[in-house]
Amino acid sequence: MTKEQISIYFQELQDNICKALEKADETGKFLEDNWQREGGGGGRSRVIQHGKIIEKGGVMFSAVWGDLHEKMLASMGLTEKVDFFATGVSIVLHPQSPRMPIIHMNVRYFEMSNGSFWFGGGIDLTPHYVVEEDAAWFHNYLKTACDRHDEAYYPKFKTWADDYFFNTHRNETRGVGGIFFDYQKTDETRNKEQLFDFVKEIGESFAPIYTHFMKKNKDLSFTENEKTFQMLRRGRYVEFNLVHDRGTKFGLETNGRTESILMSMPPVANWVYDYQAKEGSAEEKTLNLLKKGIEWV
Amino acid sequence: MTKEQISIYFQELQDNICKALEKADETGKFLEDNWQREGGGGGRSRVIQHGKIIEKGGVMFSAVWGDLHEKMLASMGLTEKVDFFATGVSIVLHPQSPRMPIIHMNVRYFEMSNGSFWFGGGIDLTPHYVVEEDAAWFHNYLKTACDRHDEAYYPKFKTWADDYFFNTHRNETRGVGGIFFDYQKTDETRNKEQLFDFVKEIGESFAPIYTHFMKKNKDLSFTENEKTFQMLRRGRYVEFNLVHDRGTKFGLETNGRTESILMSMPPVANWVYDYQAKEGSAEEKTLNLLKKGIEWV
Repeated sequence: MTKEQISIYFQELQDNICKALEKADETGKFLEDNWQREGGGGGRSRVIQHGKIIEKGGVMFSAVWGDLHEKMLASMGLTEKVDFFATGVSIVLHPQSPRMPIIHMNVRYFEMSNGSFWFGGGIDLTPHYVVEEDAAWFHNYLKTACDRHDEAYYPKFKTWADDYFFNTHRNETRGVGGIFFDYQKTDETRNKEQLFDFVKEIGESFAPIYTHFMKKNKDLSFTENEKTFQMLRRGRYVEFNLVHDRGTKFGLETNGRTESILMSMPPVANWVYDYQAKEGSAEEKTLNLLKKGIEWV
Repeated sequence: MTKEQISIYFQELQDNICKALEKADETGKFLEDNWQREGGGGGRSRVIQHGKIIEKGGVMFSAVWGDLHEKMLASMGLTEKVDFFATGVSIVLHPQSPRMPIIHMNVRYFEMSNGSFWFGGGIDLTPHYVVEEDAAWFHNYLKTACDRHDEAYYPKFKTWADDYFFNTHRNETRGVGGIFFDYQKTDETRNKEQLFDFVKEIGESFAPIYTHFMKKNKDLSFTENEKTFQMLRRGRYVEFNLVHDRGTKFGLETNGRTESILMSMPPVANWVYDYQAKEGSAEEKTLNLLKKGIEWV
């Protein structure tokens, strides 16, 4: 299939996800914002703010092309100029309730005029309070989706997510992880269609996964204390995205569209100096579960 | 003078600044937190939270030493291991009121076992709402302080601050700038004592400058709308510090003390998608003044 077909699929995926989220949120509506990129291409940003369940979030589609940025050329060890084409859907949702998890999803396709192409993506979950049963359900869902394509995917991409979504300066994972993959190219075991089918499966897992949590958790009450902890966890989310996330850093450095890149920022975040969870508290339990290598399945 | 003498001076500076700020704040008190660094040295963190004027801030002293980190060796083109000694005071204060500016100050001394040493530092002001008269007063104060040592300092260090405190991905300065300088070494025109005298002058300018604004602005009323804009400007402060500030990035990458480095984070910050100031509003006026090269004096 062509890059145009992949790009059209991603737009439809954006449409479907927005519809499913609006339906589950009941009151929140996505506002659309189209933008053009100077060097070629553009995007369709869909942002939701002040929903009943989702406080702020974005479901962003883009398809951009042009000369590959020199930073990217250098990072790939390329010396000659090449054209690139990149398309994908990126999502971050910050819920109102501390009992709902933050979620992130990305599916993307990249190709270069030298003939090279690959897929990347992932889904990861950042609960403000880790509920082990929910984390297990989430990982099981992803494992089942992965296993339909290749049983080697889940263990490999789960470990990749643990390593990627890690706040080194805090020595803690961003949340309970999920899957992350990049540079997935064709080889003797899989052709382009098979790779794309896998990426579609991940993209189409997003709405069922998050609406599951929306339905399950929407009526759970919470305390002021839990709200405060949510704000601190959002601060860590900001730290991860601005300090470590390669996509964010690369986007900002290469003159990407700042508002689309930083749609991942929460509506409100807090910082206190040297926060310490009380012994035996739910907050302490969560912090103890923000570790690499937990086998949730 | 020795590194020990410089370090003792910085501790006294921290004491004096904390006393002056507590007096001007009237209710806020600094809490002290001592920490040790595994590789050598440590620090004395002083943090104020929930003051009458200062909502959250830190006045941090540190003196650390040991093997120079390989990243630092590489950045200086050094191939052999050297020991380093670094000491300084760093301050960031986030006020309660949107009519009060955020302020940052840093003075530091660095020396290596190969005999090389230098001073660095600066003060810059980040008003939520730029008041031209206040920005001019601030820059005049700094210019006068600089001129006592070298008339070339202010123009040079003012430009350096404009370039340094710049949020490239937003195409705006962090605030109204100030002065920034680094790698200030002895040469035919200045000996170590003269350099240190200049750094002392900057350090001792901090309390008079900020308490001036505390006295001047403490009774100014503000609206909900101004408070909202303050939260958005704090979001930009977070972005600058986590994405661009070299000190923050370097500290986090080299396993510095995270809580001391990130004391610069505001207590609360907000993000909205694609904020646009209303035409003719005070917010628009401020955004139009967040540019490099404004001659405030």
